[in-house]
Amino acid sequence: MNGQNGLNLSRRIRRTPYTSNVENHGVTGFSVVNHTLLPKSFQNTLEDDYLHLQEHVQIWDVGCQRQVEIKGKDATKLIDLMTPRTVENMGIGKCLYVPLTDTNGGIINDPILTKIAEEHYYLSVADSDVLLWARGLAIGFKLNVRIREPDVWPLAVQGPKAPLVLSEIFGDKINTLKKFNFDWFPIEGSNQIIARTGYSRNGGFEIYLSRPELGDNLWKTIWKVGEAHNIRPGCPNIIDRVEAGLLSYGNEMTVENTPLECNMDKFINIEKETDFIGKKTLLRQKQYGVRRRIRGVVFNGPKIPTITRPLEVFDKEKRKIIGSLTSGAHSPRFNKNIGVGMIDKGYWDENEKIEVKIDETNFCDGLIKNLPLVK
Amino acid sequence: MNGQNGLNLSRRIRRTPYTSNVENHGVTGFSVVNHTLLPKSFQNTLEDDYLHLQEHVQIWDVGCQRQVEIKGKDATKLIDLMTPRTVENMGIGKCLYVPLTDTNGGIINDPILTKIAEEHYYLSVADSDVLLWARGLAIGFKLNVRIREPDVWPLAVQGPKAPLVLSEIFGDKINTLKKFNFDWFPIEGSNQIIARTGYSRNGGFEIYLSRPELGDNLWKTIWKVGEAHNIRPGCPNIIDRVEAGLLSYGNEMTVENTPLECNMDKFINIEKETDFIGKKTLLRQKQYGVRRRIRGVVFNGPKIPTITRPLEVFDKEKRKIIGSLTSGAHSPRFNKNIGVGMIDKGYWDENEKIEVKIDETNFCDGLIKNLPLVK
Repeated sequence: MNGQNGLNLSRRIRRTPYTSNVENHGVTGFSVVNHTLLPKSFQNTLEDDYLHLQEHVQIWDVGCQRQVEIKGKDATKLIDLMTPRTVENMGIGKCLYVPLTDTNGGIINDPILTKIAEEHYYLSVADSDVLLWARGLAIGFKLNVRIREPDVWPLAVQGPKAPLVLSEIFGDKINTLKKFNFDWFPIEGSNQIIARTGYSRNGGFEIYLSRPELGDNLWKTIWKVGEAHNIRPGCPNIIDRVEAGLLSYGNEMTVENTPLECNMDKFINIEKETDFIGKKTLLRQKQYGVRRRIRGVVFNGPKIPTITRPLEVFDKEKRKIIGSLTSGAHSPRFNKNIGVGMIDKGYWDENEKIEVKIDETNFCDGLIKNLPLVK
Repeated sequence: MNGQNGLNLSRRIRRTPYTSNVENHGVTGFSVVNHTLLPKSFQNTLEDDYLHLQEHVQIWDVGCQRQVEIKGKDATKLIDLMTPRTVENMGIGKCLYVPLTDTNGGIINDPILTKIAEEHYYLSVADSDVLLWARGLAIGFKLNVRIREPDVWPLAVQGPKAPLVLSEIFGDKINTLKKFNFDWFPIEGSNQIIARTGYSRNGGFEIYLSRPELGDNLWKTIWKVGEAHNIRPGCPNIIDRVEAGLLSYGNEMTVENTPLECNMDKFINIEKETDFIGKKTLLRQKQYGVRRRIRGVVFNGPKIPTITRPLEVFDKEKRKIIGSLTSGAHSPRFNKNIGVGMIDKGYWDENEKIEVKIDETNFCDGLIKNLPLVK
């Protein structure tokens, strides 16, 4: 299985308002995230799309980034309970990366929290049913909140020329948006959220379209304006993402991993006053330290295809497995293979020498690297 | 998009202990259920696999049927809260179909509940993160339970010759297993659950393998014995499933639908004493009646491929949409197209004449049918 196989469709795997456009652009492969199609490859090579993303602008169907809307008197209280991050003094119009934790400190999801109004939030979630988690907690704790999945379908415009394209459509106000902030913009008579966020190194914008029937037109409008700027259909690019140190829930981390193992120390505040879920375990882990941690690796050997199954990382001398790479690919920038994954304590130092097992016959020299690999 | 496209793989979409075997047998397409690969097609046609399943025996990788294990003093209490079905007097060794409901009565999942021991259960779940739902409730209600996803990977052996094959391996005790019961059987020195359950009209067995490292051998052992009985690799077959009236969560029903709309009246007991989640809404819905309900349809026209997007159902004279078919295909048995889906009140009678829109030019005559289409 060469990283791609057939995907059989059904209603259960939801289409987005943009799927038809993606098909028209010749999508060659999808993944499934939150029971929804995520385009994962087009007709160009991964490397070609990567190079394009460094210079130009791409339009991404990220409708699978489903929103969990939490609204009501106890909304902040519930979110404060769900994450080790401080959210109490968050401003309206802000976006925050908020790992959500289980009782054992394991990560349940790592969404972007968007504050729409007082006691009104969206959680833009990775691949797990946070809707059920939040509702279960709210019912059990008898909180006064309404939790639902609104009919909101994010569309990303990413790459260095994203501001050029969107400012032609939405005016100069686009350029005043700061990173991890959002504002409201008119789309065909409706008022829509556009955030300066995204899952690429150069960043860009995410349009939280709440009127799916406008999706087709929105795609076509952006495409038309984008043509002068060499726009392409795209998707989160594994080379770009690994270079940027952007983690993927389900890949680099699962519910078996804690925010401390995932280098999220700087985002979170385990000592915050609220008894958030997982606090006890995380306080203990902070005190005693973690035994594995996500690190970057740059390694030699034949060009690898996109990593679809973890590659083992070895202590070269002791012939001992010391971790695994869960995402990675060949990077044209480094002209080497790159990857990220959990690495055991003792091997975290920058430029620590390790070995990556590419396949049964290729054990390749590599170096541990700090993330991001590229600033 | 002809019902199949490319699926790009990553660690996030989990392989099962049987995936390599499925690949060796020439799988051509997968679906993704519970973040796990579910084989959906092999090299034979759907019709050919359907005919084979009616007569012989198939081995199915249903490792995606993840288990949610609930154990501890309050286990029964929690499950009783989660479903309108009566579970309090359930016997050890029994399996029950238990729709789980949200506060608005909407279905969150429709798992098989297996009672392993007193206050010890498995929920074998369809495609939603019941683990998070159950944990959220347990934390909120401060229940004394341990909830986890055990390392258990169901393998199904289905079709009329399934008892022949498994009794050769596990002895005559297999034949004494009644439908919706399980017992323990030895596999390479370990003790494993085998249940007389499965997602096909003729039924068969599901092996709840708790030692994934034995999966490869288990597959090969069944295959070897099965060869004399014309065994094939297979998967839930859409023709067989629709004929049997077996519903699929995410297809026929979502969280927007209640158990009453899904003809589950006979499985559930809305009046049970427990204030289960959704009771209030369901009591009201029972009193006032539902406005749509799942029905079968047999219809004419050109042979349809597997339904991957809902087909609209029309009142022929009024040219009004009265429902949609969410699963279906062409049935060799009826030599017609068949489907299931939600149909509006007023059109539920057996043999009610309706029309199905197959595509822009084909509006085809059909009849409403009681489920199952085939006993």
